[in-house]
Amino acid sequence: MNQAYDPAQHLNQARITGVSITPVAFKDPPLLNTVGVHEPFALRAIVEVHTDAGVSGFGETYGDAGHLARLQLAAAALPGTDVFNINALRSRIAQALEQDTSQGGHGMSGMVTGSSTADRVLSPFDVAALDIQGKLLGRPVSDLLGGAVRGSVQFSGYLFYKWAGHPGQAEDSWGAALDPEGIVRQARTMVDAYGFSALKLKAGVFPPEEEIAAMHALRAEFPDLPLRIDPNGAWTVETSIRVGKELHGVLEYLEDPTPGIDGMAAVRREVGMPLATNMCVVSFADVAPAVAAGAVDVILSDHHFWGGLRRSQFLAGITETFGLGLSMHSNSHLGISLAAMVHLAAATPKLDYACDTHWPWKDPSEDVIADGVFTFTGGAVQVPTGPGLGVEIDRDALERLHRQYLDCGLRSRDDTGYMKRLHPSYELQSPRW
Amino acid sequence: MNQAYDPAQHLNQARITGVSITPVAFKDPPLLNTVGVHEPFALRAIVEVHTDAGVSGFGETYGDAGHLARLQLAAAALPGTDVFNINALRSRIAQALEQDTSQGGHGMSGMVTGSSTADRVLSPFDVAALDIQGKLLGRPVSDLLGGAVRGSVQFSGYLFYKWAGHPGQAEDSWGAALDPEGIVRQARTMVDAYGFSALKLKAGVFPPEEEIAAMHALRAEFPDLPLRIDPNGAWTVETSIRVGKELHGVLEYLEDPTPGIDGMAAVRREVGMPLATNMCVVSFADVAPAVAAGAVDVILSDHHFWGGLRRSQFLAGITETFGLGLSMHSNSHLGISLAAMVHLAAATPKLDYACDTHWPWKDPSEDVIADGVFTFTGGAVQVPTGPGLGVEIDRDALERLHRQYLDCGLRSRDDTGYMKRLHPSYELQSPRW
Ligand SMILES: [Mg+2]
Ligand SMILES: [Mg+2]
Repeated sequence: MNQAYDPAQHLNQARITGVSITPVAFKDPPLLNTVGVHEPFALRAIVEVHTDAGVSGFGETYGDAGHLARLQLAAAALPGTDVFNINALRSRIAQALEQDTSQGGHGMSGMVTGSSTADRVLSPFDVAALDIQGKLLGRPVSDLLGGAVRGSVQFSGYLFYKWAGHPGQAEDSWGAALDPEGIVRQARTMVDAYGFSALKLKAGVFPPEEEIAAMHALRAEFPDLPLRIDPNGAWTVETSIRVGKELHGVLEYLEDPTPGIDGMAAVRREVGMPLATNMCVVSFADVAPAVAAGAVDVILSDHHFWGGLRRSQFLAGITETFGLGLSMHSNSHLGISLAAMVHLAAATPKLDYACDTHWPWKDPSEDVIADGVFTFTGGAVQVPTGPGLGVEIDRDALERLHRQYLDCGLRSRDDTGYMKRLHPSYELQSPRW
Repeated sequence: MNQAYDPAQHLNQARITGVSITPVAFKDPPLLNTVGVHEPFALRAIVEVHTDAGVSGFGETYGDAGHLARLQLAAAALPGTDVFNINALRSRIAQALEQDTSQGGHGMSGMVTGSSTADRVLSPFDVAALDIQGKLLGRPVSDLLGGAVRGSVQFSGYLFYKWAGHPGQAEDSWGAALDPEGIVRQARTMVDAYGFSALKLKAGVFPPEEEIAAMHALRAEFPDLPLRIDPNGAWTVETSIRVGKELHGVLEYLEDPTPGIDGMAAVRREVGMPLATNMCVVSFADVAPAVAAGAVDVILSDHHFWGGLRRSQFLAGITETFGLGLSMHSNSHLGISLAAMVHLAAATPKLDYACDTHWPWKDPSEDVIADGVFTFTGGAVQVPTGPGLGVEIDRDALERLHRQYLDCGLRSRDDTGYMKRLHPSYELQSPRW
């Protein structure tokens, strides 16, 4: 055993032979946020990593054109790599991206800024490699992350102001939600269907008073549910402090009321509730400045931009070590991402809050995974116990959603552009109030 | 796959059926430090975890009586646990230790204070669980930690002031080292035999001027080797600053010149070289205060007290995130610990310095692992590529070292007591100068 290190001697060998990257589009309702409104389709990329072991694995990530180009750069650098060496995947990807000088185009619509490009690109490959490892080893991904500490993972009900339907289309099944009554109605439908035991309102859409009224209406209707509000930095420090004081005792946390570490720190000094973020701490480089400034109490992790599941565990170690809370962020996503989120959450001992998910906003007939893996009971999803991610790809469905991508014409997420086409007077402003 | 979480359904099942804890003793030379002198035997405990998969795994830890009692408490709580769920091991151990109200007795002789009891006790079980996982999966432990980024791991030559032999015994093969010439002679022997490309002097034994002279003598003899000095907090802040200034340009880092986070921070403000520690940051609870105080530049990790290999990776994530350097600490140890250290170091992308090891001080004929796995070439050890830790236990040797433990009469590490028995005027003092 004293020979030179040679990965070729490892058992359960699985070297990458190639990568397939398939952009897909799935229907998305007109969900409003402070930078605009969701377009009729959300874009994702499905990454399949093939190996010489006859097993492939899957990851899911953003589907924007710029990101797809970077995924291709990364994919070209990976053949020959052992899927058990995620450190090697990471360094090859970082090296491949040195050729890339483009900016943006990751599909996060300006609400997650400054995240690390290398970590965003690594993420689906890390997930796919763990999926393959688990399949070869006969163990669920949660075991590869240290073991599940819970059999199911709690999610929060993610409420959005929305139009009744996309302009020119029929009203969708959710209908409009443009005032406190609409939000409460939406919340009731969602809680009845999914059993969520926490609720979050995507805010920054209407003047703060209307959104404060919506939170009070939710509190009255759901006296026992923890509530959160997230205006994506739509408020000045002054407005944030005012809203924070008015919602004192109503919220479990206040998420990204204002942009930037300094702004958040200024708000935090004046409000008596935890401040959470997925905007001012979005990469490992942001952590030390945020800790030094005392900017936040809770970080919303997201394996899609924190470098995959293993590096998201480092973030969990950091939040635990620095006495910060940990929650989980979500963009519009499909079942592969949900599986990855659930395995990560299951293997994270100190996860303090129900995780975010856009899942209820997805048409149940649209996904790339075979039916029936995920159902919500009491707001929670069971942790898959099969090998790897524990989900199977429906290749016909993948092909359908890829065709939908080709046909829909969208190539980048552009909430602001869509809003401006519909309402030319719309102006992007941050902060807005 | 949507069934309730049931680890019994996992493939490659391996539930713990029992644990064997074997205290062992191996010969140790009279190495001097600021709290006394090494006794004729060093104590360790070998932990063997048995499973229903017919495979067992090994960990190595401190052998002091107090620690053995805590290991037994932990061991009793583990049967039935899946070795793939290290999170479950950890919570069971933490729970078991709630019954324990004893203090100290961990075998670190006052030079590593305040480390977390639960993490110290977890460590050998984490290592043994990973050893079993690797054996079942046919993969080396480094793969379970994210993959080796290097085929061999660099160590530093660990120099000690020492007597020629234990009083009443013959002179050992190293002979005395009680002045700069003795230290240089020892370094030359060690570098010639092991090829080390960095050197560290355990200091705090003689007045600072003599130890400064030793460092200058080493610099003259080895003009190209990075040098470190570690007096284990023997110096006041004032003395530390003086020594730091006198050794400016000579050291790659200055390790624990003075006790405590505040003292280290005061030194760091005045000296121009990196400060390293394995004394004021020895648990996750110490990290945030040390960062806030700006106390150190480099943390010496040690899986024996940072909770095993997986939690040591969290520490590596923290040091990388906060711009701190990472090195590795060592106590007197056997081959199981060396294997664990090497796998961890191999899978740590940002490891900035050659690791410490007491390995050269061990009689080559004494170990619990089968011969020939580890040899040093150019100061480095190859990363084992076999399944698990990649080492085999020599059960006859284990029995011999256990018998030596029974016969030697030592039950706790007590450098100070041994020194006082030999030199009744000796007084423990920190800081001493
Ligand atoms: Mg948010
Ligand atoms: Mg030290």
